[in-house]
Amino acid sequence: MELKGQNFVGGGLSCEGGKVFHALNPATSQQLEPTFHEATESEIDRALELSVQAFREARERKLSTAPLLYALADEIEILGSELIDRAVAETGLPEARFVGERARTVAQIRMFAELVEEGSWVEARIDTSMPDRHPLPKPDLRQMLIPVGPVVIFGASNFPLAFSVPGGDTASALAAGNPVVVKAHPAHPGTSELVAIALTRAVTRSNLPAGFFSMLHGASYEVGISMVRHPKVEAVGFTGSLAGGRALFDEAAARDRPIPVYAEMGSINPVFILPSALKERAADLAQSLHQSITLGVGQFCTNPGLLVGLKGEGLDELLESLGKLTSDFPCATMLHAGIRESYLAGVQRLAGREGVRVLSHSVSEPDPSRTEVQAAILMTDADTFVSNEELSHEVFGPSTLVVTCESVEELEQVADSLEGHLTATVQGDPEDLTKHLKLITILENRVGRLIFNGVPTGVEVCPSMHHGGPYPATLDARYTSVGTNAIKRFARPACYQDFPDKALPTELRNRNEKNIWRLIDGEFSRESVVAD
Amino acid sequence: MELKGQNFVGGGLSCEGGKVFHALNPATSQQLEPTFHEATESEIDRALELSVQAFREARERKLSTAPLLYALADEIEILGSELIDRAVAETGLPEARFVGERARTVAQIRMFAELVEEGSWVEARIDTSMPDRHPLPKPDLRQMLIPVGPVVIFGASNFPLAFSVPGGDTASALAAGNPVVVKAHPAHPGTSELVAIALTRAVTRSNLPAGFFSMLHGASYEVGISMVRHPKVEAVGFTGSLAGGRALFDEAAARDRPIPVYAEMGSINPVFILPSALKERAADLAQSLHQSITLGVGQFCTNPGLLVGLKGEGLDELLESLGKLTSDFPCATMLHAGIRESYLAGVQRLAGREGVRVLSHSVSEPDPSRTEVQAAILMTDADTFVSNEELSHEVFGPSTLVVTCESVEELEQVADSLEGHLTATVQGDPEDLTKHLKLITILENRVGRLIFNGVPTGVEVCPSMHHGGPYPATLDARYTSVGTNAIKRFARPACYQDFPDKALPTELRNRNEKNIWRLIDGEFSRESVVAD
Repeated sequence: MELKGQNFVGGGLSCEGGKVFHALNPATSQQLEPTFHEATESEIDRALELSVQAFREARERKLSTAPLLYALADEIEILGSELIDRAVAETGLPEARFVGERARTVAQIRMFAELVEEGSWVEARIDTSMPDRHPLPKPDLRQMLIPVGPVVIFGASNFPLAFSVPGGDTASALAAGNPVVVKAHPAHPGTSELVAIALTRAVTRSNLPAGFFSMLHGASYEVGISMVRHPKVEAVGFTGSLAGGRALFDEAAARDRPIPVYAEMGSINPVFILPSALKERAADLAQSLHQSITLGVGQFCTNPGLLVGLKGEGLDELLESLGKLTSDFPCATMLHAGIRESYLAGVQRLAGREGVRVLSHSVSEPDPSRTEVQAAILMTDADTFVSNEELSHEVFGPSTLVVTCESVEELEQVADSLEGHLTATVQGDPEDLTKHLKLITILENRVGRLIFNGVPTGVEVCPSMHHGGPYPATLDARYTSVGTNAIKRFARPACYQDFPDKALPTELRNRNEKNIWRLIDGEFSRESVVAD
Repeated sequence: MELKGQNFVGGGLSCEGGKVFHALNPATSQQLEPTFHEATESEIDRALELSVQAFREARERKLSTAPLLYALADEIEILGSELIDRAVAETGLPEARFVGERARTVAQIRMFAELVEEGSWVEARIDTSMPDRHPLPKPDLRQMLIPVGPVVIFGASNFPLAFSVPGGDTASALAAGNPVVVKAHPAHPGTSELVAIALTRAVTRSNLPAGFFSMLHGASYEVGISMVRHPKVEAVGFTGSLAGGRALFDEAAARDRPIPVYAEMGSINPVFILPSALKERAADLAQSLHQSITLGVGQFCTNPGLLVGLKGEGLDELLESLGKLTSDFPCATMLHAGIRESYLAGVQRLAGREGVRVLSHSVSEPDPSRTEVQAAILMTDADTFVSNEELSHEVFGPSTLVVTCESVEELEQVADSLEGHLTATVQGDPEDLTKHLKLITILENRVGRLIFNGVPTGVEVCPSMHHGGPYPATLDARYTSVGTNAIKRFARPACYQDFPDKALPTELRNRNEKNIWRLIDGEFSRESVVAD
């Protein structure tokens, strides 16, 4: 397929503006064709106007987005190796990674399609009337979640499929019934265009209005800001840096009508290693931590950037193994030059602090023309860590900081000094979780997911997953960006009082035609309501 | 009981500051004793530090707040007529109103206590592991809602009990397991002090740490702002004006770590009157609308401030009746001089617009020393309304604006010109709801609750109620401030991966000891999980 480098505006291609950019292959530093055109203000406005019209039409015609999602998953698979090849060229990541990421992406999309078809996600609640109640009769009240309207989604650089144009944010926003306008990430515009073709075909195949999907390009900051400022946008989804997410939040909060921004930002995913974990499995633990630290060249939001352990023989053994694995780790290509520079600066910043030393790093020499970096393990003590807030900031890439503690109290102090993160991991034996109740309670208050004897990377896509945490891990710890609950970000309750049965949405009528779970007069059931 | 006029800081009384104020009886313009002391920065800081400590202790000791809520409801009733008398003196509202409001308040508190005792509100989700899954094993993941930490609640002027110190915000924040620091409304500080005594007793009786409740006074803007700025606050609840709510939101959004503000602000609660409603019941409708408009001297957030109807005999008949009822309505005392002045200015602003005229107002003369106002009905046409955005702004008090339309299209244009509101009402026959699908779809997109053939006042407290709507009705349309769902504002999900059963919170263990509803591997049930 020949890429055109244009914006997708409600089903049509558009390139009104003069600002252009190219993708680069980070593994070769070579420019990739074609030329991509940044969206103009008028293209942004058109995309959002069309999405409002599409939303109205879909609401009036009560159109489901499940067929769109099924069609999208199929269309992505139909793109075949062309999609994989372009993603590899734009990221420097290996082919196997994208075969896996594509499988996850289409599985997520189909999961949301099934969620919509099953229907219980709307959290239907019915309180039947009591016309004879004294002193006042009780009305009939019924509530369910409805879509909010046009959603702007920002593609993430580190997951060109699973958290980008066709990722969990887009899939969940569409699943809830909202049109989506995606801001493609400028590091993988070709991958984005291929997926946008699939999305456009899926919209057509499922007979939704063409305005249901647009995708705009922009290498400069202004395109995204204009999209967030647009008065017709109802919500924003973002995965990226703290600075980027906060900037979008500040824009959204300053609007005449503020809108929610769901931004998944930085996290160092602390791992607390208790002595019992080190007794018999120090070497195994070093192996699994090393894999987690270097997976995808450390470019995951769940990368473990902080290991906290109690001084002793066990920890020494673990660090020796980890140091060896790290020095043997070959230099690897990061996603783009900007991420590489941030990583180098971050490691240098940590290493330059008094009280911090480099325990180990890859011995091979990185090739800047291949955007390569070394893996690195740094070390410090609890006092230094607690008194230097900067040491707790994320360094995005294959490095981690080890904090050695003299006592359990120091472990607790380190935990207490942390801001919000996506995850915290405890390595130990089952008794540790009750014995170290104070530590667990502190961590529970700091993160969205607590892991026992695992690693933070590998985020299961399922109803119980929570991929979110207190600020600055995300902007809204109440919501997840992974798993079925992610749909709730793009919906709000609507309540109907004393509506005649046939005027109600299907989900709230007496007869439970869709066989969904509903809370009827305080009890969950799949029963129909017996009309008076 | 002798009132002391002091701040309640984690169980102790405190009056460090020199800034003082008094309550006024709006029905007499007389000053009420005692002198109330504004909280100082150090009192604010102490209240929040104590609340953090109390929260930690409660989380570590796994203390339930249900006993606190039951004790609170009892203690409020024990205050007896002293509470009612003080509320009447501070608001000018009749005794019967407060007997009713107290009944609603204690019923709400007990409803939340029962919700906590029953336990399903935590939305437990369990996905059991699949150790043999390929290519990767599936971990065991379990999720539930947990409390967020210290919550600041602002008392509302118009509901000194049900939306103030012991109101739905406080009850739901406590129910979720959070300590609360209340900013008492300066218009009813004595009522607030009596309730704070009840709350302090309830905390003691239920063996919770004293820091679980504080109440601070402040007639000046600064006290509330300092509370929202305090780094230890996790969420804010507010009911009041758009200007007030927005100011708090702007402060919260500008913090280093932004926090959610749940503000219920302005709403004009449009009522759309279709011809079929006027055929046989124009006079009855006039009666029920008049009651809703003047209930509590129009000082309800669900007050119907906009009536939209199709020109014709039926509408003429309704307006004649409504005009007559309004002119007969005796002048009535508003909550305080500031609200009265805003109301007078608001009515004058509307009446002064070209194309707007006064249809009717109370004929009796208002007595300013009794803080009295007249009820009023104003009229305009659809063109004037749609082209003057200001006409859609709330005027808090017993007035309403009638918009007469020439056609259904004009009805739709009026609906389309509206911002977000709490409710919209449709008066008609059942067929109208399907016949006027476009109108209903527009309204559904603008409000939180759609009412058929009723009035917006009278907000049922139950699971299906949604008291919230798109901005500027509230700051967060995803959440309600009335009904059991209100608890969700003060909780967030926590996820546990591969935790040993006994280290999990009770709600997530295999054995369903509390017999709560849980989503287990995608199905709702009250079953226990069968361990491998």
